[in-house]
Amino acid sequence: MKKITVGAFLLSMMFVGINAQSLKSPDGKFEMNFQLKQGVPYYNLKYNGNVVVEDSKLGLRLFKDTAIKFASEIAKPEDLKFDLNNGFTKTDEKRDSKNETWQPVLGEKKNYINHYNELAVTLNQTSSDRSIVVKFRLFNDGLGFRYEFPQQKNLNYFVIREEDSEIDFPTDMKAWWIVADYDSQEYQYQETKISEIPARWDKAYDSNASQKLIKNAVQSPLMLKKEGKEPLYVNVAEAAVLNYPASHLEVDAQNYKFKTHLTADRQGAKGYIQTPSVTPWRTIIVAPKAEEVMDSKMIFNLNEPTKYTDTSYIKPTKYMGVWWEMIIGKSQWAYSTAENVHLGVTDFSKLTPNGKHAANNTRVKEYIDFAAENGFGGLLIEGWNVGWEDWFGHSKEYVFDFITPYPDFDIKMLNEYAHSKGIKLIMHHETSGSATNYERWADKAFQLMNKYGYESVKTGYVGDIIPRGEHHYSQWTINHYYRIAEKANEYKIMINSHESVRPTGESRTYPNWISAEAARGTEYDAFGGNNPDHQTILPFTRWMGGSMDYTPGIFQTKLDYYFPGDTRFVKTTLAKQLALYVTMYMPLQMAADLPENYKKHMDAFQFIKDVAADWDDTKILAAEPGDYVVTARKAKGTENWFVGGITDENKRDYTVDFSFLDKGQKYEATIYEDGKDADYINNPQNYNIYKKIITSKSKINFKMARSGGFAITIKKM
Amino acid sequence: MKKITVGAFLLSMMFVGINAQSLKSPDGKFEMNFQLKQGVPYYNLKYNGNVVVEDSKLGLRLFKDTAIKFASEIAKPEDLKFDLNNGFTKTDEKRDSKNETWQPVLGEKKNYINHYNELAVTLNQTSSDRSIVVKFRLFNDGLGFRYEFPQQKNLNYFVIREEDSEIDFPTDMKAWWIVADYDSQEYQYQETKISEIPARWDKAYDSNASQKLIKNAVQSPLMLKKEGKEPLYVNVAEAAVLNYPASHLEVDAQNYKFKTHLTADRQGAKGYIQTPSVTPWRTIIVAPKAEEVMDSKMIFNLNEPTKYTDTSYIKPTKYMGVWWEMIIGKSQWAYSTAENVHLGVTDFSKLTPNGKHAANNTRVKEYIDFAAENGFGGLLIEGWNVGWEDWFGHSKEYVFDFITPYPDFDIKMLNEYAHSKGIKLIMHHETSGSATNYERWADKAFQLMNKYGYESVKTGYVGDIIPRGEHHYSQWTINHYYRIAEKANEYKIMINSHESVRPTGESRTYPNWISAEAARGTEYDAFGGNNPDHQTILPFTRWMGGSMDYTPGIFQTKLDYYFPGDTRFVKTTLAKQLALYVTMYMPLQMAADLPENYKKHMDAFQFIKDVAADWDDTKILAAEPGDYVVTARKAKGTENWFVGGITDENKRDYTVDFSFLDKGQKYEATIYEDGKDADYINNPQNYNIYKKIITSKSKINFKMARSGGFAITIKKM
Repeated sequence: MKKITVGAFLLSMMFVGINAQSLKSPDGKFEMNFQLKQGVPYYNLKYNGNVVVEDSKLGLRLFKDTAIKFASEIAKPEDLKFDLNNGFTKTDEKRDSKNETWQPVLGEKKNYINHYNELAVTLNQTSSDRSIVVKFRLFNDGLGFRYEFPQQKNLNYFVIREEDSEIDFPTDMKAWWIVADYDSQEYQYQETKISEIPARWDKAYDSNASQKLIKNAVQSPLMLKKEGKEPLYVNVAEAAVLNYPASHLEVDAQNYKFKTHLTADRQGAKGYIQTPSVTPWRTIIVAPKAEEVMDSKMIFNLNEPTKYTDTSYIKPTKYMGVWWEMIIGKSQWAYSTAENVHLGVTDFSKLTPNGKHAANNTRVKEYIDFAAENGFGGLLIEGWNVGWEDWFGHSKEYVFDFITPYPDFDIKMLNEYAHSKGIKLIMHHETSGSATNYERWADKAFQLMNKYGYESVKTGYVGDIIPRGEHHYSQWTINHYYRIAEKANEYKIMINSHESVRPTGESRTYPNWISAEAARGTEYDAFGGNNPDHQTILPFTRWMGGSMDYTPGIFQTKLDYYFPGDTRFVKTTLAKQLALYVTMYMPLQMAADLPENYKKHMDAFQFIKDVAADWDDTKILAAEPGDYVVTARKAKGTENWFVGGITDENKRDYTVDFSFLDKGQKYEATIYEDGKDADYINNPQNYNIYKKIITSKSKINFKMARSGGFAITIKKM
Repeated sequence: MKKITVGAFLLSMMFVGINAQSLKSPDGKFEMNFQLKQGVPYYNLKYNGNVVVEDSKLGLRLFKDTAIKFASEIAKPEDLKFDLNNGFTKTDEKRDSKNETWQPVLGEKKNYINHYNELAVTLNQTSSDRSIVVKFRLFNDGLGFRYEFPQQKNLNYFVIREEDSEIDFPTDMKAWWIVADYDSQEYQYQETKISEIPARWDKAYDSNASQKLIKNAVQSPLMLKKEGKEPLYVNVAEAAVLNYPASHLEVDAQNYKFKTHLTADRQGAKGYIQTPSVTPWRTIIVAPKAEEVMDSKMIFNLNEPTKYTDTSYIKPTKYMGVWWEMIIGKSQWAYSTAENVHLGVTDFSKLTPNGKHAANNTRVKEYIDFAAENGFGGLLIEGWNVGWEDWFGHSKEYVFDFITPYPDFDIKMLNEYAHSKGIKLIMHHETSGSATNYERWADKAFQLMNKYGYESVKTGYVGDIIPRGEHHYSQWTINHYYRIAEKANEYKIMINSHESVRPTGESRTYPNWISAEAARGTEYDAFGGNNPDHQTILPFTRWMGGSMDYTPGIFQTKLDYYFPGDTRFVKTTLAKQLALYVTMYMPLQMAADLPENYKKHMDAFQFIKDVAADWDDTKILAAEPGDYVVTARKAKGTENWFVGGITDENKRDYTVDFSFLDKGQKYEATIYEDGKDADYINNPQNYNIYKKIITSKSKINFKMARSGGFAITIKKM
């Protein structure tokens, strides 16, 4: 059905010889060709001689003025002469290459290899005498490209109407995707062909606390698979989204083509640019094996090394939290029965307690005791500060001050108590989307953290953003997240953000932003349920750009345990929950369930106590998006390994081949697996635990239950 | 042409007896009647038994949700049941009265008298079980009313679609007005009948740096005059605009009716309200004499007393400024020839100086020397800080840091030099409209001021506001101004704001916000020219709510003095410039011209050196909007008086009757008047100065030239 495109493609081939630049990957397997066709820039991509991306257009459309006037400018017809997508001639071409090894502050491996060949083409638009650079980097695992805007006489400030970077695939492919939205990534993944996306789109979302859906567009990273005898896995994403909106992908389903769609602000503008400036990288990772896509560090490599002078305070942590009991509705964040409070005016000590406030001295001490007894490093406490009575849904700007505890939360006593037991409390800054308010209070909030010895903070952005009309992924808000990260660095504070923009590899540059949510985590199991295949897709999508605070570890999966008749449940076996600590890379590892639930399964809980949170090495043993993931990781600074395997809604056999272990060395393996009758619906808490001596020659077969899994602790003997 | 209205009015009279509340002013001259007509609230106003305001509707329309969703909610049809303008029954009625005297920190008189009778009507909307209060205060000079929203079960948060407070006049009147705009008040005043406003509207504006015009609406305060045998002067304005947008007045020209039009945000929302809350007061000042309107302190009386615990740092000042030479184009704010700079990146010391940077050590010392020699208290220096190279028109958020001087401005040396001579430098914080950026830097900026001994700051908001889509007069931005005022108070800093919202009497509550621009000041004479009647209208409009930093004192009015052939000129005689120091109340009095121009007229300059900036008493001797103003003021803590008289484009005779002086007391008067041949076009610098002994029985006749005036210093002997 792609006759027209194929025709254009053939036609374009005629020009290749005349005015085209070719770039090859270091291993020679990839070839990228750039050319101008009648002044319009195009690129294509081949892998092993086969076309992966057909000739695809590049360019940006701009607004006429650098300052957008209220509506009037938006309403004006577009004017080609302001756009940077036509009338170009090539005026320069530079080539470069790099092969470096660098060490992430926290990461999946000790060393990340950054190996690429680079082509930078300077294009001059004669009519306006403006020049831009299109820079391509071709790695052994795929292509990255971006636009660069050198400072020059005729290009100092501009406002982007849209970036029109196309990715035109030659054939239909299987796709794992979520609907595009300027404010949320918390959607259920869909598995369809590209050609089927529009038909499925309208059924692919439910409502969210903040939501601005983009019809027939999907989010990035997008995972694709060309099926057949020689399958090819393709991941489309972006890297280094800084001072720029996050992008989505408009779908041309008939032509299997995607096009960049940037997040707009309330004025419809998609980026206020001052030169010199660069866009984020558009990334296309391609590999014959799904495991190789999962293993790619290309997105991180396309980010800049950090400028932080001190990263010694950035450390992995395992933590518990006063959190799940509020998520499921057993407790509350708010302290009182009031529904309308005014910070600085309301005397919270005079309000009527609701009797369900979890962040109280007694309950928090119980958590501290349990976390300390079991070797955790941190304890998150949500609902500690005043303002939760009316925190959501009122576009209330001054919603929290981030420094005033509720009357039943003794911040000094609790921190001292925690420190005496080796626990650091983890701060919680829910902003309710009121970013302007958070910026006003950030210094005082971080000073309070320093004063009481908090080392990290979980931030939250539930609800519509203030400044009103901005979006969670618009340029202003993205700049806000980085302002907060930089300010936190001044105070030597680590950040774990929720409802923020998805990471695109910036942990290389801002290593104190150690984790983010930015997808459906465990909490959605209480809000309606994640599908059993959810965790097998996330590593190919959300995780491509950085770690996720997924908050696994739910042992009591059925919520009718708390509320008779409640049909909600976490769609997993207990063993699968353990496996997630390995399959999901998280330097900030939460054990999300309640202490009393862990106490009933201390044998299984031992795995969570033992598992590492930072790694010297990672091996993706097996993976297929939507089906299964098996990962082995070597704990930082040790010779110990951990293995995790998970499956989707189907039972699955998998045999772990331990050949990744040192040869001739004996290891003690502790194995946690689904019990014979385990089943995520009928018998989730059925598991076996046993020990076994293994070597690199060992193989162990696992029979994973429906939405089951297994976990292994491997200690060098 | 008001048949329908008259009919409705007669009909309404039938209901008055049934369900109406009447309120009288303390002197009994005013009568206000409130009534519900089929559940809709109305009020009217009578003066001396004559209808001044016919039955006029009250009420607000609301959005359905407290959080406005991107466009979707705006697009929805209005839904009556959410509105607070119908279906009311009266459930309570409270009366109160007050007669107090209070002292402004800085003011036109030592004592302001606040004397009113009050009626508060509680209205319940049965269908929604929501209650609001309409509160009326009737003074001897007019009416104020507002809406109050008590906290209650069904009214906690709402978003205003529009406030529909009507003022329906029975007859056509003369009106002095400027076009309504969400971002600027810098327009030329128009003098037409109400009925002629629409025809004139389209010719009544030119372009502005930030502009969102509201078609066929006018700004507040609006000055009106019912002409005829018994003239009546009416001023329509608002008081205490806090946490609420500023309002405009939609004109129904055929029916001589006005209706509130609030400034919208980018989402079309006009106020995010959390109860308990109150709106600003809508004010209608009415008097048979123009002088009484000018003398009214009703707008200040409707504001709350300050909560500041220390106001001792709030002092009047006369100052000069490194300013006018940039305004006319002789010098520049920017230091270098660069057109694109990045704060924190650009090394300004390495840029090429443009050679026209006025805020340099040498030039500033010249100003300090002259200001010190002539007894001034302050010196404003604009362009002292980095960022002016590209400060405007690019929607650049990080445009200034407010703490980094240009390489040729030695902030430490200059402050020490100034202090050694008794001068305080006045800080300048131009924000370029980037309010978010200013809030981020405000603490550091004020700390810098404290460190170097700056006591006051001139702030500026030229250009579109950031958060993008907010307006200079929208709720968010108004809250910003007050946040800055409160923060400045923490640092004991006085604020003089430019391009901010017009004041509505809040200097009573926030006395450190001592002045504002918020209308066309002297600078417009360099930008195209203020009409000669401009300064005779401002006291009836812009000045009603607070002082203005008009920056008078231009002696060298013709700009061809600097630039041969330049036709720009300040449309005034020199004597009129002196008079402005009295006719215009300004606790922060600028002598705006260059030292070298004053040096040529040191005899006339003596008046500026002598004139006070703070007052124990004020007498409006004569005034007619658009024609003339003659004002006498008694200097704070002395027995000395100053008199100023100005006229419009017409020559005018005026005889000052000095009966306001103490009886039997001799005074030495120094008189500055237009010379015989003075004329604002042909001979502006022609003036006479002479001394004369006067008593309370003296009378002196002045022959004011076209756009001329006179000034008198009166010292008790």
